[in-house]
Amino acid sequence: MFQLIHKDKFSKARLGRLKTAHGEVKTPVFMPVGTQGSVKAIANKELLDCNVEIILANAYHLYLRPGLEVIRQVGGLHKFMGWAGPMLTDSGGYQVFSLASLRKVREDGVEFSSHIDGSKHFLTPEKVIEIQNELGSDIMMTLDECVHYPAARDYVEQSLELTTKWARRSKKYFNESRLSAVANRAQIDSTAKAEIMSDERPLLFGIVQGSTYLDLRKRAVEDLVSIGFDGYAIGGLSVGEPQNLIFEVADYTASLLPEEKARYAMGLGTPPDMIETIACGIDMFDCVVPTRNGRNGQAFTWLGELQLRNADYKIDTRPIDEACGCYTCRTHTRAYIRHLFNTEELLGLRLVSLHNIHFYVKLIELARKAILEDRFMKFKEEFIKNYNKWKELKK
Amino acid sequence: MFQLIHKDKFSKARLGRLKTAHGEVKTPVFMPVGTQGSVKAIANKELLDCNVEIILANAYHLYLRPGLEVIRQVGGLHKFMGWAGPMLTDSGGYQVFSLASLRKVREDGVEFSSHIDGSKHFLTPEKVIEIQNELGSDIMMTLDECVHYPAARDYVEQSLELTTKWARRSKKYFNESRLSAVANRAQIDSTAKAEIMSDERPLLFGIVQGSTYLDLRKRAVEDLVSIGFDGYAIGGLSVGEPQNLIFEVADYTASLLPEEKARYAMGLGTPPDMIETIACGIDMFDCVVPTRNGRNGQAFTWLGELQLRNADYKIDTRPIDEACGCYTCRTHTRAYIRHLFNTEELLGLRLVSLHNIHFYVKLIELARKAILEDRFMKFKEEFIKNYNKWKELKK
Repeated sequence: MFQLIHKDKFSKARLGRLKTAHGEVKTPVFMPVGTQGSVKAIANKELLDCNVEIILANAYHLYLRPGLEVIRQVGGLHKFMGWAGPMLTDSGGYQVFSLASLRKVREDGVEFSSHIDGSKHFLTPEKVIEIQNELGSDIMMTLDECVHYPAARDYVEQSLELTTKWARRSKKYFNESRLSAVANRAQIDSTAKAEIMSDERPLLFGIVQGSTYLDLRKRAVEDLVSIGFDGYAIGGLSVGEPQNLIFEVADYTASLLPEEKARYAMGLGTPPDMIETIACGIDMFDCVVPTRNGRNGQAFTWLGELQLRNADYKIDTRPIDEACGCYTCRTHTRAYIRHLFNTEELLGLRLVSLHNIHFYVKLIELARKAILEDRFMKFKEEFIKNYNKWKELKK
Repeated sequence: MFQLIHKDKFSKARLGRLKTAHGEVKTPVFMPVGTQGSVKAIANKELLDCNVEIILANAYHLYLRPGLEVIRQVGGLHKFMGWAGPMLTDSGGYQVFSLASLRKVREDGVEFSSHIDGSKHFLTPEKVIEIQNELGSDIMMTLDECVHYPAARDYVEQSLELTTKWARRSKKYFNESRLSAVANRAQIDSTAKAEIMSDERPLLFGIVQGSTYLDLRKRAVEDLVSIGFDGYAIGGLSVGEPQNLIFEVADYTASLLPEEKARYAMGLGTPPDMIETIACGIDMFDCVVPTRNGRNGQAFTWLGELQLRNADYKIDTRPIDEACGCYTCRTHTRAYIRHLFNTEELLGLRLVSLHNIHFYVKLIELARKAILEDRFMKFKEEFIKNYNKWKELKK
């Protein structure tokens, strides 16, 4: 499912191709986040215009609203959203532990109250696979506990044990549900088995936890690899720890993971975070930063971050980024976008969110090109230097 | 500037063409409202995709934010907004009387406090023309007092007297400022005078007030026509009066206006309002309804209005309107849009606003076609019958 195409000669950065039931994805890749089945304020056609190849949706949110019954009746999440490309669904583990209240973790699963209406729910590793089956996910994630930073070693060790057990049960249920899908379809179609077992089937990724304890990360990797997944995510990154620890954990964990499987750093990150961890051998990223910060008027550029609400831009007739070819930069000035934020016009947050997604995707495209040409370290160095330019100037 | 192209054989409906400095507009026409320099939640390219030919912006709002200094420095409102087509600017009279507080109307103008920060301002008819000059408006409106319904005859009569005086001063100042622009430009360009005096100059429209008193409407028309404007707006419509009075006043007033000038019903209206008043000989419309109602989940269709928040649409996989070719209807289902409103996703209000603008423009396009083919009354009858279909079914 994952094909390693090229390894950069002077770093651990790598180029790959991930096959999914809804098409191939070139890695490294950035996946915009459509938590509730919509990348906030952005239309599908705009994502395609930005060369977005894959998006992320969230099982926890969609399970609560619109609920599985609706998704089933309209024919799955792809149809519901009108998105024909690949889609990864987060398991909801992170949301259960960060959003839901009255949470009770038990051996068999987690009981919680909805953050929307307080209704009670019980999620097990099996149920979470079932939800993602119903959504029609191309890449599923297992239920895990995402431990925040800092966390006591004892707690992390205990939590990891449960996460690993859940991962084993997830894989078992995933295989069973595949077999049962094959059995069901075999009655009407004799070629179904081969199909479902190969390209058309969803992928299942395991999630490596272990906080900042490297030996626990190692244990997690060994356990997950022995279970066997289509790809491996590094969870519990960027949850409050200092930046050097993000890179240390990502680098160490990536170095233990099997080369022939995709590696996904969950929830990362800022543009420099992504570039730094691509150098550690990470292939996949998702982050709410381009849209969330975009809605607050913060734009990402090759020279750093711009806060468009600032009075500095009052009569600035330049685009956000003179080097950018996105719709926002081709059409509008900083002065206009500042006015839109100043007057609470919805177009403002649309325009900046769009620019930011375009920037993230373009950055990763250029990173891929640099890897192919064995000059990723130079690319990284120049990118980081330029990206800090405005920050330096302001000192 | 206005060319009457065709009159429907069986009604007062008419086809025309309005020349502006930024291009021609086919009438009847609907102008989406971009109060603060943005049609709420909609991008310029989407307006163009919907065949929008002209938009409206508001002098009062733009005068307060970003302010004239910013607009001047960035080179006018067209450049500021990135809109290259025709633009009409409202004088701000309506806003001073509906939004601003501590309002004092004097003979020479109106003093008020900003609805944003309470700052004090004084607008005169001359100042309002000056503001619209700075904005670079293609069609300017004179300062008037928009009287709400119901209003005592004495009050309306007195208000109308002032509005007429202000209209006279507006025209005088408009002519003077044109002459001075010509004088200034003549120094550098000998052909400037002819240009500024013809196609390239902005148009100035007068506004007929008089509430529901038909004799006062008549007096207003006579006074304004004697002053002479490029077009005539009917103001003070849809300000609380019953619907039959809207049509009565529009019909009566339009019948008094010179045939060779464009007629603009300010603030109208719902789709049936527009179709009914096109039959009275109205050429131009603006209304916040498609975007404002769109932001609340109300969609306009050929069969009436849909409230997309309703549970009825929970698993409805049809587009908003099966007869519609807009991006929203080509891409998304009612079930998905309902989910977007239900989860407060910004994409929802974008999609419905876009659909509504598309619907308004398409409706007026078909009305123009019907006028050209002398079958407007049949078109109107069928439209109204179909438009009430869902309402009838629900009874």
